[in-house]
Amino acid sequence: MGDWKEITGGVTAARGYRAAGIKAGLKPSGLPDLALILSDVDAIAAGVFTTSQVRAACVDYCRQRLQAKHSARAILCNAGQANAATGSQGVKDTLESADLLAKELGISPESILLASTGVIGQRIKMDALRDGIPKVVAALSTEGSDAAAGAIVTTDLVTKSIALETTINDRPVRIGGIAKGSGMIHPNMATMLAFVTCDASVSPTLWQQMLARAADRSFNSITVDGDTSTNDCLIALANGESRTPAITEIGPEAEKLEAMLTAVCQHLAKAIARDGEGATCLVEVQVTGANDETAARQIAKTIAGSSLVKSAIFGRDPNWGRIAGAAGRAGVPFEQDNLQIKMGNFLLMENGQPLPFDKAAVSGYLKQAAAGAYMKEDTVLISVNIGNGNGTGKAWGCDLSYDYVKINAEYTT
Amino acid sequence: MGDWKEITGGVTAARGYRAAGIKAGLKPSGLPDLALILSDVDAIAAGVFTTSQVRAACVDYCRQRLQAKHSARAILCNAGQANAATGSQGVKDTLESADLLAKELGISPESILLASTGVIGQRIKMDALRDGIPKVVAALSTEGSDAAAGAIVTTDLVTKSIALETTINDRPVRIGGIAKGSGMIHPNMATMLAFVTCDASVSPTLWQQMLARAADRSFNSITVDGDTSTNDCLIALANGESRTPAITEIGPEAEKLEAMLTAVCQHLAKAIARDGEGATCLVEVQVTGANDETAARQIAKTIAGSSLVKSAIFGRDPNWGRIAGAAGRAGVPFEQDNLQIKMGNFLLMENGQPLPFDKAAVSGYLKQAAAGAYMKEDTVLISVNIGNGNGTGKAWGCDLSYDYVKINAEYTT
Repeated sequence: MGDWKEITGGVTAARGYRAAGIKAGLKPSGLPDLALILSDVDAIAAGVFTTSQVRAACVDYCRQRLQAKHSARAILCNAGQANAATGSQGVKDTLESADLLAKELGISPESILLASTGVIGQRIKMDALRDGIPKVVAALSTEGSDAAAGAIVTTDLVTKSIALETTINDRPVRIGGIAKGSGMIHPNMATMLAFVTCDASVSPTLWQQMLARAADRSFNSITVDGDTSTNDCLIALANGESRTPAITEIGPEAEKLEAMLTAVCQHLAKAIARDGEGATCLVEVQVTGANDETAARQIAKTIAGSSLVKSAIFGRDPNWGRIAGAAGRAGVPFEQDNLQIKMGNFLLMENGQPLPFDKAAVSGYLKQAAAGAYMKEDTVLISVNIGNGNGTGKAWGCDLSYDYVKINAEYTT
Repeated sequence: MGDWKEITGGVTAARGYRAAGIKAGLKPSGLPDLALILSDVDAIAAGVFTTSQVRAACVDYCRQRLQAKHSARAILCNAGQANAATGSQGVKDTLESADLLAKELGISPESILLASTGVIGQRIKMDALRDGIPKVVAALSTEGSDAAAGAIVTTDLVTKSIALETTINDRPVRIGGIAKGSGMIHPNMATMLAFVTCDASVSPTLWQQMLARAADRSFNSITVDGDTSTNDCLIALANGESRTPAITEIGPEAEKLEAMLTAVCQHLAKAIARDGEGATCLVEVQVTGANDETAARQIAKTIAGSSLVKSAIFGRDPNWGRIAGAAGRAGVPFEQDNLQIKMGNFLLMENGQPLPFDKAAVSGYLKQAAAGAYMKEDTVLISVNIGNGNGTGKAWGCDLSYDYVKINAEYTT
């Protein structure tokens, strides 16, 4: 759809980036648990962070760093301990992590961003981290994206990675990303993390604005269980190594870059929703006919987040009543007599009233689309038109299965 | 706790009320499905209705009636068909229902309020209703509350009823209520309904204000699955048959009456939460230290509604991390270093940091409190202090079990 092509390489697809992921002994499982992404040169850096009042030390650290300075060289991420609810000692550990990595890389600590994921209330295992930092630096490689993607996961079933390439002023520009998250599952193994690298040259203000909008259209439009983590963060670097002219104002180049950034974020966000705990399929909700995009997205998110809608989809049940109910309570005014609801191409409700439909056919569509989603080829599509205006918006979620309850009830702190 | 005692009689405990519930053939199951509550004299009437954009015809009907006239004589409720998403025909059916009952009772249609619960998109079976109306009128009795309570339920496992009595100016004043609801379950068998009768004499404005506040502290503070129905309604009548002086302004008598009204609503609301689909226990969340009651309740509702917290309680897991996470995302600013969390009498987190605790002891508390809840004797209590101010608030919910998913996935439209 977009004016770009998919390429390999994840966060090292763009020019001038290296990455690594190693086993540092932070996770009890012994799996890879320390990731590093490095830009060869100073990169413009933008970030979007959890809005929770209960935040990990690294979140406050990154926010402060990015307020003081709009560039960075490196992102270090540990998995195993969230370093949230760890008080002043957690803050000290964060600062020490940045100092240690800065010394190892021979750069300023101000150029380092940090992320953590794992058990809330646990400090980072600093002895393991101290030993791990030289190793992860030594492992940096222009082909290190998969290793990094594998070292940031916790309860994820799959790693999440993407890279896209477009052309600006006849030169290739690339954006790549890796992410982790499968709902705020395994209670304290919380967190949605995403790291994006880009080789375009772009002004800090524009890059932050682009990232904020892209986040709204991707990570902020997915819902697995409605729970926001203490550690959620999205960081995007743009290092200019594509040697394309600097994008400093709104125009065709800026739009092209933002569209590709949004596509990268949406790919990663959908991968997270598809990997939602216990999920058997990916659900996409498209809302049209709203007054604006925000209102449309609000309804889409309410439908995608409804436990009743999610349970019905798990049962492959074309339950338009639950969809109408969720749309109605989203907080967006509309005339109920204008409501239209579709599943796939099947029209289930028009002018606010149910239509007769072939239930077996719609259930069949749900079964097929859900199976396709599992194969990462398709999604269960719900379309809703509220008949107010031209605003459109999307949200993504997953179904609610027995396994969700099992995963979340049987974990013990 | 309050200055009142519990009595029998439900909605017919207060003087001057009769009620009935009969089998009218509206439900496919053949169970009782038509309820009527009648005041012998004109009663002051107040109502609180669903805020959904998708509403049943009876909701719009009642809202309009109560705007035009602040009194009523009768409440008719049918179970089986929700009469929501039924367009102009649904409106006609509503008006005809009121006319038929008015003729049968020999009163004005303007004195009749209506409620429906059942399958969305289905019209009321008007033939059955026409036959049923004379029968339900004939069945009216001063001991008819239980029959009425039994005729408004859909997927509820138990009926919900309460009556309280206090003394105002040396004379007994009574408030009784019945309710139905167990979450917006069995998709389209939606709806929370509650009907309250009182024999005090009170001004319409004061009564509506009291009811709105009582609803916020009860029905609006419970969450089973976060889904609001198309048909939710709470109606309260006050007919003055206690022959106590009219309460027309704020003062000790008004406070006493409102406290008892709130207690009646809270009893019914908790009964609904306890009967939540698949629930094994009732959960009460008490939040203190907020700037005001609204902020406290907002946090309490977010915790009570969190799928992760609910799953943990189903697993009898003292998961303070999920509680802290839910508190943090409730949209209320607080200093995370002030956060305190308790389960029962066990302090799990203080000053924003986890405390060492005897996990077996806290799990034991959860098992015991949950078992007690099932016996309707106790609740799982979660207490949270955010350290801002003196505002307090409560919310109630239930745990999230395999049966929730089963009930909601296996139902088919």
